[in-house]
Amino acid sequence: MLVLGHMNPDTDSIVAAIALADLFSKRGIEAKPVAQGKVTPESAFVLEKFGLTAPEVVTSVAGQKIALVDTTELAQLPGDIAQAEVLAVADHHKLGDLSTPNPLEMWVWPVGCTCTVLKSMYDFYGVEVSKGIAGAMLCAILSDTVMFKSVTCTEADKKAVEALAKISGVSDVMGLGMEMFKVKSAVEGAPMRDLVFRDYKDFDMAGHGVGIGQLEVVDLDILKPYVDGLYEEITKLKGEKGHHTIMLMLTDIMKEGTEMLFVTDDKAVFKKAFGVDAGERSFWLQGCMSRKKQVVPDFQAKAFA
Amino acid sequence: MLVLGHMNPDTDSIVAAIALADLFSKRGIEAKPVAQGKVTPESAFVLEKFGLTAPEVVTSVAGQKIALVDTTELAQLPGDIAQAEVLAVADHHKLGDLSTPNPLEMWVWPVGCTCTVLKSMYDFYGVEVSKGIAGAMLCAILSDTVMFKSVTCTEADKKAVEALAKISGVSDVMGLGMEMFKVKSAVEGAPMRDLVFRDYKDFDMAGHGVGIGQLEVVDLDILKPYVDGLYEEITKLKGEKGHHTIMLMLTDIMKEGTEMLFVTDDKAVFKKAFGVDAGERSFWLQGCMSRKKQVVPDFQAKAFA
Repeated sequence: MLVLGHMNPDTDSIVAAIALADLFSKRGIEAKPVAQGKVTPESAFVLEKFGLTAPEVVTSVAGQKIALVDTTELAQLPGDIAQAEVLAVADHHKLGDLSTPNPLEMWVWPVGCTCTVLKSMYDFYGVEVSKGIAGAMLCAILSDTVMFKSVTCTEADKKAVEALAKISGVSDVMGLGMEMFKVKSAVEGAPMRDLVFRDYKDFDMAGHGVGIGQLEVVDLDILKPYVDGLYEEITKLKGEKGHHTIMLMLTDIMKEGTEMLFVTDDKAVFKKAFGVDAGERSFWLQGCMSRKKQVVPDFQAKAFA
Repeated sequence: MLVLGHMNPDTDSIVAAIALADLFSKRGIEAKPVAQGKVTPESAFVLEKFGLTAPEVVTSVAGQKIALVDTTELAQLPGDIAQAEVLAVADHHKLGDLSTPNPLEMWVWPVGCTCTVLKSMYDFYGVEVSKGIAGAMLCAILSDTVMFKSVTCTEADKKAVEALAKISGVSDVMGLGMEMFKVKSAVEGAPMRDLVFRDYKDFDMAGHGVGIGQLEVVDLDILKPYVDGLYEEITKLKGEKGHHTIMLMLTDIMKEGTEMLFVTDDKAVFKKAFGVDAGERSFWLQGCMSRKKQVVPDFQAKAFA
């Protein structure tokens, strides 16, 4: 069985794939973590820190047995996913448009991170988390919950971090988090396309193609010199994909808000979805840090209504 | 929150709704079990046996908060489910075409019965199952697994029955099962439409409407006098629904096989799906007792390929 997360894998997608493959293996079911792309600098930092290897890159899964982590959206899965057999899902997102011909195992909870769900799965099956995987899971939770600041963060996420810190021997959890987010904030020298795709997802919303990317930094000033280039890049990307709208969330994790850079066929969608008058190419959303909870639901429900 | 199962509710759908509403209530989340139709004679027997009340019938859910049990198929849900907010799912079927705008809680396992999943949810949340609900859950598992004979039955189902028997004080589990299946086998005096709908589900398969019903009896001879009437009824139903195919599984739980009564636009679908040459209006499938595992997957994957 291959354990696989979404396209443009973030740290949760990478670490959850490693952890779920580990859990399956320890339950006697052969499983291997894979990924739909190279790891980000943040993930590379986490994997190195805890002595783990980046999953092999796989983009075609026809004929394979699959466990999915961190998504059930067809747009974020390999194009031939319908020719694979999806046997398990661990996720913390909205339910997407995946459907299966056979019964399967699904653990989906409204918590901040797939790795929080996985910690409970380990506990449920009475399997121990190894030290290295525990450290990486802890980092994935800090990353997804923006060090507990995101509205997606729940008590379950905090409890999981507490337990994983003990197992992994991490004593300064927040210090490790800041170290990780500084790595994540580094943009110097990266091609624009890489920055847009660092954490990017496509959605089908009422028949309209919508792309939403996110860059999280410890200070928005870091991104100032890159905004023109990023705008050019999402404009190009919109043309290639034939999308209705592409948004790129430039999120300041200390100011706790997002400068939303966009290209769209119709600016009215932002008024409808977020109640804001969009500027020429961006607008500020104070308090908005979560694509999953603060952007996707409003946009899906209201933008095309 | 309303807790709701599929159309034409079977015992699992009814009891799982009662149990999940109970579990939510005991976790401090107000919840009420409802159903999309009247209970079957089998369910009425189970509810009365354990002092439970049949859920109120609800066919419209717009604006409501919803927890689903036993299905994620839109065709088996109220037509206005998209105007409701689905917050939780407990199920043991294939993943259907439901999708949600928001993150949710899902417990879906490849076991024989939703109530088996619910027993683990009670355990996970450290909530006790009350005596009456435990007895009804036990019956739901016996019903869905045809007293452990169905291919859908797993070790988890047997373990759940063992634990629920202790809680409910049921000493003769198989005796209770036979008593229940005798009630289920009773067809005398029932209108044909009621018999077809006793356990009936609609599916959308590659754009084709497909209806599959099932009657389980302890001896197929019980149904002999009714076959003509049932055939007439599914022919009428096919016209009303505009379906491609309707199948009615006449399952003999002692002989462990199914006489498949059908009407279809194209008999070739049965050759493609099950490798059988269908008779004029029926064919026998030895060993076939499960719609979910032995009919739906093959039909969905092969009938229209």
